[in-house]
Amino acid sequence: MSDASSPVPSADGVLDLLGLLAYASLTAFFRLADDAALAISLADKTALAEMAVAEFGHFQLLRRRIEATSADPTEVMQPFVAAIDAFHARTAPSDWLESLVKAYVGDGIAADFYRTIAQVLDPETRDLVLTVLADTGHSEFVIARVRQAIEADPRVAGRLALWARRLVGEALGQAQRVAAEREPLARMLAGEAASQLGDIGRMFARLTDAHAARMASLGLAD
Amino acid sequence: MSDASSPVPSADGVLDLLGLLAYASLTAFFRLADDAALAISLADKTALAEMAVAEFGHFQLLRRRIEATSADPTEVMQPFVAAIDAFHARTAPSDWLESLVKAYVGDGIAADFYRTIAQVLDPETRDLVLTVLADTGHSEFVIARVRQAIEADPRVAGRLALWARRLVGEALGQAQRVAAEREPLARMLAGEAASQLGDIGRMFARLTDAHAARMASLGLAD
Repeated sequence: MSDASSPVPSADGVLDLLGLLAYASLTAFFRLADDAALAISLADKTALAEMAVAEFGHFQLLRRRIEATSADPTEVMQPFVAAIDAFHARTAPSDWLESLVKAYVGDGIAADFYRTIAQVLDPETRDLVLTVLADTGHSEFVIARVRQAIEADPRVAGRLALWARRLVGEALGQAQRVAAEREPLARMLAGEAASQLGDIGRMFARLTDAHAARMASLGLAD
Repeated sequence: MSDASSPVPSADGVLDLLGLLAYASLTAFFRLADDAALAISLADKTALAEMAVAEFGHFQLLRRRIEATSADPTEVMQPFVAAIDAFHARTAPSDWLESLVKAYVGDGIAADFYRTIAQVLDPETRDLVLTVLADTGHSEFVIARVRQAIEADPRVAGRLALWARRLVGEALGQAQRVAAEREPLARMLAGEAASQLGDIGRMFARLTDAHAARMASLGLAD
């Protein structure tokens, strides 16, 4: 990986971002592997396991990049452990459909986030983020599964729409906590020239718009 | 993967073997990912997760090969689900050290088994098996961990030696069950010309000898 071997700008914001993404990817690997065990069909089990394996690949890329800065990945990830663990603890799926919706929503928000932050990064970190981004989108199989489930039992739609709202609410809550605790990261994401709160607000607004589009494709009310 | 696209001999034994190995790899992925969550250090967690990801890669290779025979992977794996699930249900690690020993013992036995059966397979299945074999051996980090734990508390050695014996006992028990239920597979593994029980017995003896060598490298009594 040529990305991982070149020096990384030592700006705290960038290192924070790498730590955040690395821990999020590692945790996503474990959560998706866990959730895959709930699948009834082998095809579904495998599809979710493939998403898990892709997340682990992202973690490995990000970890190598952190190591290339001579930083310790464990230390760089540490500031984000509490927020990401709290997110997953509050959003443990209670069945297979909730797992699928969580995988789809999480994959989509991660892709939007990667796309948005790529604009404010130095060229080398941007290359890494775009490499990871190009490998998201393993969750398209979810659309058919959720639509089938709603067709079989229309009441499922209300429950899953509520679930998706809870996922986004918990994610935004933890994101705000991280932004408040890690000022250099928040400043970097907002762009130094702009008013910090306004821009983060707009970034969140873009992310929630994209989320609404995904809910529609699942056949769920936003 | 060129292995996966060429036709496969339709001998029941070969298809059985592919199904057995595919389900064993898929299950190993889920079990190792689960066990990795018990790790305290990030390095250990990552090392075990890497083993899990390698197992999933094996599963994908084997599944493609099964699909190349126009067989349904779910159906081909089905005869082995009960034995492999029973093995894991009876050998759920109760702590991190037991997970490590299970990963090491399992990886070693799998490699021995691949090496042994490669001799009796048609060339194309043999190529696939050797490809998978070349990707085993991710468990060498376990040796240092187990030796450290024994140094810190010598009583650990007795408990882990007992645990390793239980792992092998359960594995052999399930293997015998599979051999009894799947005669074409057992006959293929034993070599058609030889007396079936004698040769399977010798194969088991070779596997347990190699296991004894691995126990010694961990610092455990066989």
